[in-house]
Amino acid sequence: MDTISVAAVQLTSSSDKKENCQKAARYVQKAAEAQCRLVVLPEHWEWLGPPKEKPKIAEPVEGPSIQFLQELAKKYQIFVVSGSIAEKNGEKQPFNTSVLVHPDGGLSKPYRKIHLFDTEVAGGHKESQFTCPGSEVVIENIGWATVGFSICYDVRFPELYRQLASNGAGIFLIPANFTALTGPPHWEVLVRARAIENQCFVIAADQTGMTGAGWEAHGHSMIVDPWGEVLAMAGREEGIITAKLDLNKLTEVRQKMPVQSHRRL
Amino acid sequence: MDTISVAAVQLTSSSDKKENCQKAARYVQKAAEAQCRLVVLPEHWEWLGPPKEKPKIAEPVEGPSIQFLQELAKKYQIFVVSGSIAEKNGEKQPFNTSVLVHPDGGLSKPYRKIHLFDTEVAGGHKESQFTCPGSEVVIENIGWATVGFSICYDVRFPELYRQLASNGAGIFLIPANFTALTGPPHWEVLVRARAIENQCFVIAADQTGMTGAGWEAHGHSMIVDPWGEVLAMAGREEGIITAKLDLNKLTEVRQKMPVQSHRRL
Repeated sequence: MDTISVAAVQLTSSSDKKENCQKAARYVQKAAEAQCRLVVLPEHWEWLGPPKEKPKIAEPVEGPSIQFLQELAKKYQIFVVSGSIAEKNGEKQPFNTSVLVHPDGGLSKPYRKIHLFDTEVAGGHKESQFTCPGSEVVIENIGWATVGFSICYDVRFPELYRQLASNGAGIFLIPANFTALTGPPHWEVLVRARAIENQCFVIAADQTGMTGAGWEAHGHSMIVDPWGEVLAMAGREEGIITAKLDLNKLTEVRQKMPVQSHRRL
Repeated sequence: MDTISVAAVQLTSSSDKKENCQKAARYVQKAAEAQCRLVVLPEHWEWLGPPKEKPKIAEPVEGPSIQFLQELAKKYQIFVVSGSIAEKNGEKQPFNTSVLVHPDGGLSKPYRKIHLFDTEVAGGHKESQFTCPGSEVVIENIGWATVGFSICYDVRFPELYRQLASNGAGIFLIPANFTALTGPPHWEVLVRARAIENQCFVIAADQTGMTGAGWEAHGHSMIVDPWGEVLAMAGREEGIITAKLDLNKLTEVRQKMPVQSHRRL
């Protein structure tokens, strides 16, 4: 299996979980119809509302939102990356958690967002107020590739992607809710840099427009190859982008320029 | 001193050291006339010929090429970054060495290129055949800023720039001899990514066109601010680019989005 089609779903999620699930189902179906074997949803695809409500709407990984995706994955025989959901964490603030659903409904180990978006830009954000950070770097072997997890603000931390690549990742997943203010100066550069410096594919699925969180997201979801070439890029509209990944490129690029083996620090 | 003008010199260096020195002198003078306080020359500004001749043309850091720059620095009262030279290394292969010359002629600690360009792309390069790698990360406090050294292929290794920034660098120096084949897909993305993810200025001075090394260099020297904005960018011609660095931007960007303090791996 040398060439695999994949998709990124770009959404404007609201605080209505049912509505978000219906939209996700429509786009997962579209991805399946386009012969995609893997589809990535954006960060907080299932719910975007006022951050202080996160603890209230959080679910366990085995809760209804992921169960919904498990049904879709089985129905369409497709790998579905649950961009991320607010994951119930006992009495503490929830995690921001990504999980991959296999076509048989099985789940990967959950990845809990490590770097939280605490910043004064774009109106101010304090993700850590209603979110617990994770601490574990997670990859998942899915047979024809090994995917490495990350979420949104993580993209500013190259050390995470070095670890993912060293652990064997060939495809980085970056579900995101990138702000429309930091998007133009930073999004494309950082997504492409992670691909180039680690010689990995990247599938980056972003929120877009005015979401239920009350601020504007950047859109411009991207699929990039290990040479840094942009295979597909969305505009600002909701929808899917797809691309064919030539998996031989991983070996080809790494043999020509063995960056990993040249690391000295 | 809040705003400082700086320059990057773009050259097509040959294997004629005298000619290269004359060109460098002309552009350092231009930078001084443009009120620049610091000027960066490209990698191997002083000699670019067949790689196997490197051991023969190598000089000590205190040799004639750097002495020439010391005179220029004193004459124009300007900081001059000697992109890099082939540095004599006893009986071993030379280092690829960068050094900063102060306006009083004093020299920084030399930075010896850590990551050597051994690759099959762009006709094949095996820098390590005629070059010894360095192993030490080097910064230099020059009063109004702390600069962090790197050279060309280093730009593919984000871990180096993390160390430079952690050690206090606010301006990354990237003298380069980037190939015209890897330039279009990689150069601008990587240079901007190092600025954005570390919230540092970058001054990247590249070789351009058909140099004495016998292959085409990319040009497109760049000066970038800590938000990733491109303040100046060259085309393919020889010459200088200049930009005013608002040094307050370092604090401003880092306060708004404290990426360094968010590092968790």
